[in-house]
Amino acid sequence: MRSQPTTRRTVLAGMAAVAAFGIPAGTAVAEGSGPRIGILLYDGFSLLDPTGPAELLSRLPGATVTMIAERRGPVRTDTRQTSVMAERSIAEVDRLDVLLVPGAGERGTVAAMENPALIDWIRRVDRRTTWTTSVCTGSLILGAAGLLRDRATTYWASASYLESTFGVKYVPERYVQVGKVITAAGVSAGIDMALFLAARLAGDEIARGIQLAVEYDPHPPFDSGNAATASPELKKLALRLLAESQK
Amino acid sequence: MRSQPTTRRTVLAGMAAVAAFGIPAGTAVAEGSGPRIGILLYDGFSLLDPTGPAELLSRLPGATVTMIAERRGPVRTDTRQTSVMAERSIAEVDRLDVLLVPGAGERGTVAAMENPALIDWIRRVDRRTTWTTSVCTGSLILGAAGLLRDRATTYWASASYLESTFGVKYVPERYVQVGKVITAAGVSAGIDMALFLAARLAGDEIARGIQLAVEYDPHPPFDSGNAATASPELKKLALRLLAESQK
Repeated sequence: MRSQPTTRRTVLAGMAAVAAFGIPAGTAVAEGSGPRIGILLYDGFSLLDPTGPAELLSRLPGATVTMIAERRGPVRTDTRQTSVMAERSIAEVDRLDVLLVPGAGERGTVAAMENPALIDWIRRVDRRTTWTTSVCTGSLILGAAGLLRDRATTYWASASYLESTFGVKYVPERYVQVGKVITAAGVSAGIDMALFLAARLAGDEIARGIQLAVEYDPHPPFDSGNAATASPELKKLALRLLAESQK
Repeated sequence: MRSQPTTRRTVLAGMAAVAAFGIPAGTAVAEGSGPRIGILLYDGFSLLDPTGPAELLSRLPGATVTMIAERRGPVRTDTRQTSVMAERSIAEVDRLDVLLVPGAGERGTVAAMENPALIDWIRRVDRRTTWTTSVCTGSLILGAAGLLRDRATTYWASASYLESTFGVKYVPERYVQVGKVITAAGVSAGIDMALFLAARLAGDEIARGIQLAVEYDPHPPFDSGNAATASPELKKLALRLLAESQK
């Protein structure tokens, strides 16, 4: 059996109609006319932290989403099995509307916090952003750059480190906004934060359209993602699975 | 201000204890001793489709998660702004425990369905998988390979295409299992499907541990991700945002 013919109709119903009727004037935008969103990758980042928000934010009208790292090229995740390409080096980027700093495992987070080139770049870029954001332990990296005030969130297992190191209150929400800084909780919380951010950047209706575009109607088969209600045993298991996968 | 010192305590509370006490015999596994999971990338894939499941499945004890494409190297997403590295070419991989085929926009999906090298490889690898899975329009690619039976899910806007082209019933669930084939709904549904799959591969307790490891306790700020309850206007907007971002 060969591949099915696909020419008679479009795979996505309604896509042809959209193309035929064009974009209403109010939302007709060319790529690059919308927000410039930069995501900082560094060795050992956790894969979903940047890619979840990137998926959603890339659907904002006219948005550009750029993966940035100390040097251009592939950047390894915490498992060392996967890489995402950095399309630009930090030396090539000094102006962003949105900066997003993802989280990592222990090793990657500490290395980023102690890397003056990354920390100095984050501070410099932050001066002109509209929003400076983080996912998971990325908030600790914002903390290392001196950008946290009052309250923030982070990965559940890093809450006490956040409070004792940076003197900010840990808030166990999916995302926490203080001024122009938005921190998200662990890994998957970046997706919820991205929807909130999309609404701030382009309005609630566009954010709702993006939610439908990525069919984000979550129904996990278990209800075990909240550390506040997890047993000590499950917390140990979660950290063990992370540690083992990051060896 | 320089970076904060990070040497006195660990960023992730409990991580040191986990390392010190070691892994109980029941879950002590070396990388590569668990499931071999392969994710097929192709030009124009949607970023979250492979990366959401990869994040979760990479925490399975001993798992290897390998990004695979027709050729090794960077593979562009549907927006053409981001690339994920394919670590292996299809010629290098003929045995997987889990195959995952992500979705793409109109152009990427059709090109993959009509690419005999990809379709033949999917068919060949499927013969020995434990699970053959898809996210979003990836199910149409499984359909092109002749692997769908009875029921499946797909991206909401592709439901009628799925039914009319492959003669299977579209089921509007987050994921649908028929035999060893599991199809997930659009984009973000791959995360829910990955938890279900993790439970099948390693048991409910490990799946719950993974859910906590990625803090997957979703609370989106809107409730607009379900096509069954979305207005026609919102559906049009969602498809327009997709079409614009994929130009």
